[in-house]
Amino acid sequence: MPRSAFVSLDGLDGTGKSTQCRLLVEWLTAQKVPVTACTDPGGTALGQELRRLLLFGREHRIAPMTEAMLFMASRAQLVDEVIGPALDRGEVVVSDRFLLANVAYQGWAGGLSADDLWTVGRFVTGGLEPDLTLVFDLPPDIAKARRNREADRMEDRGDDYYTAVRRGFTAEAGVRPDRYRIVDANRDVDAVQREVRREVGRLLADRGWGVRE
Amino acid sequence: MPRSAFVSLDGLDGTGKSTQCRLLVEWLTAQKVPVTACTDPGGTALGQELRRLLLFGREHRIAPMTEAMLFMASRAQLVDEVIGPALDRGEVVVSDRFLLANVAYQGWAGGLSADDLWTVGRFVTGGLEPDLTLVFDLPPDIAKARRNREADRMEDRGDDYYTAVRRGFTAEAGVRPDRYRIVDANRDVDAVQREVRREVGRLLADRGWGVRE
Repeated sequence: MPRSAFVSLDGLDGTGKSTQCRLLVEWLTAQKVPVTACTDPGGTALGQELRRLLLFGREHRIAPMTEAMLFMASRAQLVDEVIGPALDRGEVVVSDRFLLANVAYQGWAGGLSADDLWTVGRFVTGGLEPDLTLVFDLPPDIAKARRNREADRMEDRGDDYYTAVRRGFTAEAGVRPDRYRIVDANRDVDAVQREVRREVGRLLADRGWGVRE
Repeated sequence: MPRSAFVSLDGLDGTGKSTQCRLLVEWLTAQKVPVTACTDPGGTALGQELRRLLLFGREHRIAPMTEAMLFMASRAQLVDEVIGPALDRGEVVVSDRFLLANVAYQGWAGGLSADDLWTVGRFVTGGLEPDLTLVFDLPPDIAKARRNREADRMEDRGDDYYTAVRRGFTAEAGVRPDRYRIVDANRDVDAVQREVRREVGRLLADRGWGVRE
């Protein structure tokens, strides 16, 4: 009996993360692996309201700590309503972002304590963490050029901010090589997806799923 | 030069807390003490949206952890926007509820860890805590009978829940006699307000304010 697995994809906006999530889910679905895909923040009815507040709520100035706690609230609901039940059913969960993004954005770039954000995050998720996180890495100027839509509230910030976010992602990933992989996103979509499948395929093989790249 | 002070009033709904807040603020204002009054959750534009979600958002089932984090988010914004600046201006802040309510409701009654809620709360408020908290105590059945309006989402719960909330308030207050006072709310409004003024008056005298009861 194959066992459940929890995978998250993370990185700056514009690194191709959401496209790679979609392709990964398509690949797993084609192979009859039961997959639950979700987005953090978001992924639940309440989470969508919070996501709207966080990303598009320009009517409010939101303090960095408030921002962090709204992400935590959305994630608590996501774990309770979606991720926890899916893992209990033995499925593979693919999440577009998770706690690491909070640590990189509000911690490394936003000035809050990264250690404290990890502590709060572990409390909020009941200690649940992805078995594998793929961190898409790209220089901020290239990521920015790839974002061809109107910037949301989080994207409205200066270059130094994104440089700090990127540094956060790679530094945090670097100290947890058992669970985090840095993926060079400065390649074409297919080349990146091949690496995504290879990494996820290895995890799923360990969990008893027969998947072919 | 008198120094700032931070006072919160807390307890079950129906204990007269909000009325006592109003009377306290009127008394201080009449004595020319600069007062900032606020409500937690709420007290800011963003906080009002969260308060609405928390108290009246019956369209969503909200997990206890999500609830706790939404309170934390509202409080982070309140500290950043209202309480912190008021204390910096040297004012007296009177807050209708603060972190203790989270510990009593989501911790003692809701099943989350009270210790972890204190830890998260200290992180979120940057360690800011009320100099004095008055905890209004009343048997839950009397408090319920006094609430003569339609119940909000938090009030829709069973008697065991409120008994646990009350136990949480008194237990937490009992171990911090330097900062918490339990006030018997089973008396008429004037008698309770006299005790409120006496307690707050003592704190303000220590801070250099000349107030008369």
